[in-house]
Amino acid sequence: MEKPSLPSGTRDFGPEIMKKRKFVLSVMERVFRSHGFLPIETPSLENLKTLQGKYGDEGDQLLFKVLNSGEYFSKIKLENWPQNPTDTDYKSMTPQISDRGLRYDLTVPLARFVVMNRDKLAFPFKRYQMQPVWRADRPQKGRYREFWQCDIDIVGSNSVVSEAELVECYQEVFAQLNLEVQIKINHRLILDAFLPLLGGREQWNSFMVAIDKFDKIGQDGVSLELEQRGLPHSISAWNTLCEIASLNNTEQKLQALEQFSEIQNDSLTQGIAQVRELLTLLPNQNNVFLDLRLARGLSYYTGCVFEVVSNDPRIPSDFRIGSIGGGGRYDNLTGVFGLKDVPGVGVSFGLDRILDTLESANLLEVNNEWAGVLICCMEEDYLSTAAQIARDLRNHNLICEVYPGAPKLKKQLDYANSKGCKYALILGESEMQQQQAMVKNLETGEQQLIDWSKLSHTLTFN
Amino acid sequence: MEKPSLPSGTRDFGPEIMKKRKFVLSVMERVFRSHGFLPIETPSLENLKTLQGKYGDEGDQLLFKVLNSGEYFSKIKLENWPQNPTDTDYKSMTPQISDRGLRYDLTVPLARFVVMNRDKLAFPFKRYQMQPVWRADRPQKGRYREFWQCDIDIVGSNSVVSEAELVECYQEVFAQLNLEVQIKINHRLILDAFLPLLGGREQWNSFMVAIDKFDKIGQDGVSLELEQRGLPHSISAWNTLCEIASLNNTEQKLQALEQFSEIQNDSLTQGIAQVRELLTLLPNQNNVFLDLRLARGLSYYTGCVFEVVSNDPRIPSDFRIGSIGGGGRYDNLTGVFGLKDVPGVGVSFGLDRILDTLESANLLEVNNEWAGVLICCMEEDYLSTAAQIARDLRNHNLICEVYPGAPKLKKQLDYANSKGCKYALILGESEMQQQQAMVKNLETGEQQLIDWSKLSHTLTFN
Repeated sequence: MEKPSLPSGTRDFGPEIMKKRKFVLSVMERVFRSHGFLPIETPSLENLKTLQGKYGDEGDQLLFKVLNSGEYFSKIKLENWPQNPTDTDYKSMTPQISDRGLRYDLTVPLARFVVMNRDKLAFPFKRYQMQPVWRADRPQKGRYREFWQCDIDIVGSNSVVSEAELVECYQEVFAQLNLEVQIKINHRLILDAFLPLLGGREQWNSFMVAIDKFDKIGQDGVSLELEQRGLPHSISAWNTLCEIASLNNTEQKLQALEQFSEIQNDSLTQGIAQVRELLTLLPNQNNVFLDLRLARGLSYYTGCVFEVVSNDPRIPSDFRIGSIGGGGRYDNLTGVFGLKDVPGVGVSFGLDRILDTLESANLLEVNNEWAGVLICCMEEDYLSTAAQIARDLRNHNLICEVYPGAPKLKKQLDYANSKGCKYALILGESEMQQQQAMVKNLETGEQQLIDWSKLSHTLTFN
Repeated sequence: MEKPSLPSGTRDFGPEIMKKRKFVLSVMERVFRSHGFLPIETPSLENLKTLQGKYGDEGDQLLFKVLNSGEYFSKIKLENWPQNPTDTDYKSMTPQISDRGLRYDLTVPLARFVVMNRDKLAFPFKRYQMQPVWRADRPQKGRYREFWQCDIDIVGSNSVVSEAELVECYQEVFAQLNLEVQIKINHRLILDAFLPLLGGREQWNSFMVAIDKFDKIGQDGVSLELEQRGLPHSISAWNTLCEIASLNNTEQKLQALEQFSEIQNDSLTQGIAQVRELLTLLPNQNNVFLDLRLARGLSYYTGCVFEVVSNDPRIPSDFRIGSIGGGGRYDNLTGVFGLKDVPGVGVSFGLDRILDTLESANLLEVNNEWAGVLICCMEEDYLSTAAQIARDLRNHNLICEVYPGAPKLKKQLDYANSKGCKYALILGESEMQQQQAMVKNLETGEQQLIDWSKLSHTLTFN
């Protein structure tokens, strides 16, 4: 008999970690709902046509593809059939045997959902979505093949009020989770201002990829990279950018940008104005930082971009898993599905990384809303009475269960303790006669006899 | 540009249906938790080795299989490579290109979880699990390719207290959902009592498959089927079974079984005793019925079996989707993964069918816990003040959002109405000067001016 195992990069969540996951999810959901976001869910399976070409070549490689049902080779023509399994062109073979794949993020499904339901939705459409996504990536610390994203997006609004609301949601969620974070913001238009300095869009892309590596390779590393990428003329701009980025506060940075004579253009003016407007709407800017080197890859962002990292001093210094959230404004998300001019802005909370971060410093306690009562019978004959008492306590909103059977008391109490019950109610012969229960407080060890009719008022769970 | 679409048998859930799904899930979860069930979640992806061979040949066919990453043909040896895509032996090819599949139910993953975590769990292990499962079945009414199961199981208990608790959970959930149901019970040992009458286990299996069709083909249909299956000698037993099954109440049925002279054996005695014990533990038997023709297929059940159907008179008569829940006792679930002698019992709630049933008669109203407040600004300059008012109302546990921007009031009010807001707060020039808001009750149309400082106490959501 082979030992069962889990696919690499996937995890089981037992009760203890599930309680914590549910707590974190409930904090997020409460914040999202209080801001008027509404829930949607989309299928795990999407047509590959929907997913492919949206995440770059690397993303396409990382999609989990589902084998078609039945005779999955039957669509393939004989002349396209490889003579040998090793000389196969996989990229051309895959679409012939797989029509569907697993969702890679929640943003492309949102775009598809909006396009397919555009006549039914009220815009601006504010939705939250908390579901797993799948990526066939190499598993490592903080990186799983099945993990949860919790996204909020505001679709159909181009007001910076929306950006401010998303930043506030980040602030509220992490404040309630009691985790110190930095919310980094930047604006694509500020980065776009460098375009004339770099040549064409291609050089700009190259520049973005290079500066995105700053966290890993440092200022000089990026300079070297720029040289290797054939952008030596951009190094002085990069150095000035770094100088500005290291200034003390956001207003100083914005002013320095305004004085950076090489890049004065409409793009810069507009980007700076929007960042200022966003900050005006945020009363609490303690954990909001303008990070001019934040590019957020080459994806669909067109305005503000956001990234959240934890800088909580309680997190072990060797615990580094990068960002625990990110997002930004996109002005044409649905264009790829044929619906033009729908602006939007959204951010994602990485549930698994948030949990890993909190767990790394043991910051999540299981709250006692899970603590309950176990009724222990000394004889099988008492089980029916026990079930009746349990029903009554549940009707008073307590968690209560009857041990199924009447083994030795120690076994039953061990079970109560291992489940974190606060009370055990013991029914022996004399208790049954007196219509009482011996109530044992498992936290203090105290015991007292209490009438059945008074139990629901006596058991307290502060 | 191709129009985006969903894979057949899958669905998007927009906000309106999500509110209802969340309501039904919360009812279940509250009941499960009140009985001391604890949450677990398992990965969507399981190794095919874990899944295959557990659901019969048909089940194996219905598994969604995920194509291996990278060069997925490279494991195949040249001598096994088919010459032609149409002469492929799919069943032998699939394991060479696919190692993983999507979860088919929550029971096999539970068994795997228990085996892999047996040293960490407190037994009896009571878990609830509410997650989607996938089956490559032909979609039809009430049958989806991606659907949710909500399971509760008690593993490591052989007390009938556990069966009673599961039946009570069914009763409590459907009572809270205000849906009339029939909870059918039967006992495999009662059906086992027919074994001597039928010959060997093979005939017994054949008999079970035949009588399982009673709902579809009726008593005579089953008789014909028994004849065709080479079990003509069993027809008189079948007819007697039907006679007993049509008796008025459970106790009459049990007594008739005890008097059915052809099948008096230990199995019958034990089965009847356990059904009686179960009923003793259930104070409310109004919606619990002994259905002697309930077999629940040929799967792993060994004791009590359960099935729930709705008989609510409000459900349209042409709305038939079969059972909305089912389960039973299994005495060797984990044996297939190498852990012997772990008894258990569990039931499943079919979330999608329960929702479809409730929706078919429009029985689910969205409760007003989703109703909120929209703040409408007449000028962009007021947005920052509006954000401050919104923050204050959210701090008082209200749902409140600011319309992002200051378009015409009608547009903003349309949005508030379409989202089901109860109040719109309008900020115009005079309101800003007076530090007031024009509060419009969107249900009644009433309007009144209220000071900002008094808003949180004035807005009521009964």
